[in-house]
Amino acid sequence: MNAPLKIARLDASQSDFSQHLDTLLAWEGVSDKGVNQRVEEIIAAVRARGDAALIEYTARFDGLDVSSMADLTLDRARLELALERITPEQRTALEFAAERIRVYHEHQVQPSWRYTEPDGTILGQQITPLDRAGLYVPGGKASYPSSVLMNAIPAKVAGVREVVMVVPTPRGEINELVLAAACLAGVDRVFTLGGAQAVAAMAYGTETVPRVDKIVGPGNIYVATAKRSVFGQVGIDMIAGPSEILVVCDGQTDPDWIAMDLFSQAEHDEDAQSILLSPDADFLDAVEASLNRLLDGLERADIARVSLENRGALIKVDNLEHACEVSNRIAPEHLELSVADPESLLSQIRHAGAIFMGRYTPEAVGDYCAGPNHVLPTSGTARFSSPLGVYDFQKRSSVIFCSPEGASELGKTASVLARGESLTAHARSAEYRIKP
Amino acid sequence: MNAPLKIARLDASQSDFSQHLDTLLAWEGVSDKGVNQRVEEIIAAVRARGDAALIEYTARFDGLDVSSMADLTLDRARLELALERITPEQRTALEFAAERIRVYHEHQVQPSWRYTEPDGTILGQQITPLDRAGLYVPGGKASYPSSVLMNAIPAKVAGVREVVMVVPTPRGEINELVLAAACLAGVDRVFTLGGAQAVAAMAYGTETVPRVDKIVGPGNIYVATAKRSVFGQVGIDMIAGPSEILVVCDGQTDPDWIAMDLFSQAEHDEDAQSILLSPDADFLDAVEASLNRLLDGLERADIARVSLENRGALIKVDNLEHACEVSNRIAPEHLELSVADPESLLSQIRHAGAIFMGRYTPEAVGDYCAGPNHVLPTSGTARFSSPLGVYDFQKRSSVIFCSPEGASELGKTASVLARGESLTAHARSAEYRIKP
Repeated sequence: MNAPLKIARLDASQSDFSQHLDTLLAWEGVSDKGVNQRVEEIIAAVRARGDAALIEYTARFDGLDVSSMADLTLDRARLELALERITPEQRTALEFAAERIRVYHEHQVQPSWRYTEPDGTILGQQITPLDRAGLYVPGGKASYPSSVLMNAIPAKVAGVREVVMVVPTPRGEINELVLAAACLAGVDRVFTLGGAQAVAAMAYGTETVPRVDKIVGPGNIYVATAKRSVFGQVGIDMIAGPSEILVVCDGQTDPDWIAMDLFSQAEHDEDAQSILLSPDADFLDAVEASLNRLLDGLERADIARVSLENRGALIKVDNLEHACEVSNRIAPEHLELSVADPESLLSQIRHAGAIFMGRYTPEAVGDYCAGPNHVLPTSGTARFSSPLGVYDFQKRSSVIFCSPEGASELGKTASVLARGESLTAHARSAEYRIKP
Repeated sequence: MNAPLKIARLDASQSDFSQHLDTLLAWEGVSDKGVNQRVEEIIAAVRARGDAALIEYTARFDGLDVSSMADLTLDRARLELALERITPEQRTALEFAAERIRVYHEHQVQPSWRYTEPDGTILGQQITPLDRAGLYVPGGKASYPSSVLMNAIPAKVAGVREVVMVVPTPRGEINELVLAAACLAGVDRVFTLGGAQAVAAMAYGTETVPRVDKIVGPGNIYVATAKRSVFGQVGIDMIAGPSEILVVCDGQTDPDWIAMDLFSQAEHDEDAQSILLSPDADFLDAVEASLNRLLDGLERADIARVSLENRGALIKVDNLEHACEVSNRIAPEHLELSVADPESLLSQIRHAGAIFMGRYTPEAVGDYCAGPNHVLPTSGTARFSSPLGVYDFQKRSSVIFCSPEGASELGKTASVLARGESLTAHARSAEYRIKP
């Protein structure tokens, strides 16, 4: 029997709650100067020496003694082989998940549009996919086939012509499930590269690795720092912080279920955050008891314990409306509304990456196969960010087609405003199109 | 008579064109270490000392001797006063532009959606506005009322409750047109702050300046560096590079019109870029002659000359399809298709911020009043970025509501995949919902 779990208990109606919450949520994933400098050196080397630098870094960091980029390249045939190597049960599960993810994301496809004004002027928005997307997949223990599906499928649904993937294979370890997922998701080429060097290669291109237009996917501090550095040269998805779950419960769900939902986040890593809000203090006690009883049976009990003790909390709220207020303050990555009538709360939720409604919707089904994306804004960034989606792999172009009459009318206004800004070439360019 | 304009002439069918084009387009707006360090100091000071730091920096950098934040705050009444102070002609032009921008952006509003599966499981996407947006407006010469309209109106159309604006007033200089535009665009509060300190205040909040969820708007190198630094704490729009125009012309537009369109970009600043593509070499000569003839009459002739000589080019292409290929390579911020049949080229354009179609659509009408946004991706980032729009002030939340039957089916797949990733708490959380 291990020591009892020391998880924070808070009451949201106490006057110092706001301060406690700030402390609980505080997280700043700042790269230190040393990491920054090493990353900048790696990026500069890849830009200057291309493939040669990639081969050197891969030898040094991943312990791979390779002589050419051909040894670091996997083609579609290799991906198809992986699909044969996994178990039939795994293959069926991956195919089921991939299909559901595809169907959900097809709802996100946006059409181009235009409208014509009475004088014949046409205004619109043209939607086009990126030419090429790059997907970073971590190696080792954090190498998740589900992430491959979640990142690559929206790109393909968006119409991206080529999806390139990088995944490090430290000491040659290859994860067949990851390659099988890449195969099902339609990934076109895989390079067994990792770290800042893989990010640099996709951002700037080398003799072998093609330059991409956007880099997505999670990674360690070197990968995150490199992505931040190349932002602008290429697009990037968000810089992800540790994963979090916020559960709102009316006290009527089985406390074991809620405890396991909290564990499912806490087992990710020691910085992950699991928080429960309930108006029912007895229920909070019951969940705490469940957490203590179930902890020892977890494979990743050590990680879950540290996560819950350092960053978890069981919080008493006045009622469910109060829970929604606290939730909006947190803007959680994952929000479970484990209540009898979740629809009545939904309109009160202003900020959340994904909302899991009712007692039968654990976050875990969303992580794998419900359909929506599991790449979600962390650390409160749901205040201004969205789940990864098809829209991340498309861009818009404004379309303006003036009729001669429209140009004449618009030209008059443009002329006044341009002269007000002392931009007379703008004014004269517009004035040329004014009818005499 | 000044010296003839020395503008580059290139031929896109030459074997070394690609190299020449790379050199022409090369642009890296990297902040140097000194700027980075000063910006980090300013951000740290604003976080630590709030309003007091803002008052000190504003005294030091803007020469304003103020004693409290009240002296740096403008309310709606002050904005309404500005609307009285501008000329009636300017007011009419601003109102006309604001209304057209509003109507265009209303087409970008996206509805929430959901669908129900046969077993009763509901999947969807909920769209919500940001709570609060912050708009940076530069002071002095680059203080553009049109930018206020273009940044604030999409936020208001998106449903953002509060739009806060900052604009520096060096030595007390207030631009009434900027305040009038803010009034029409529905800006709620204005602080006469600028530089990295204004960005820090909006990102972290002070006693007086509220923390916002996203910061948009252009600024100098200090502002851009500060925005990059606070990215993650708040959302930001793009880091803008110098403005550019690419004109594709079949040789049948009045060369004076095309010359003035090129000037309208070149007059912005010395780093701006104006490029013309045409299959007609005689037309390139004619435009060069027009440029030389019209240059001296420009108010900003000195800036336009430097811009055209350093970064401009007149490029011969084989035909209009070839022009589209070169254009896709450049991914221009502004693209004019000054040709007889622009519709036939539109489907070949994969990357451009805004596309101006036909001879009667100069970029200048798009800058002010056509309706689409003038905040556009620069420096080739149209490969992966879009114009500023309503979508930048909204975010999406995934919605998942499993029926007991749906949870049971999804739980089986989630269990297999979670165990494949060694995440057993995930698996057990899903398994609780599988029907026995």
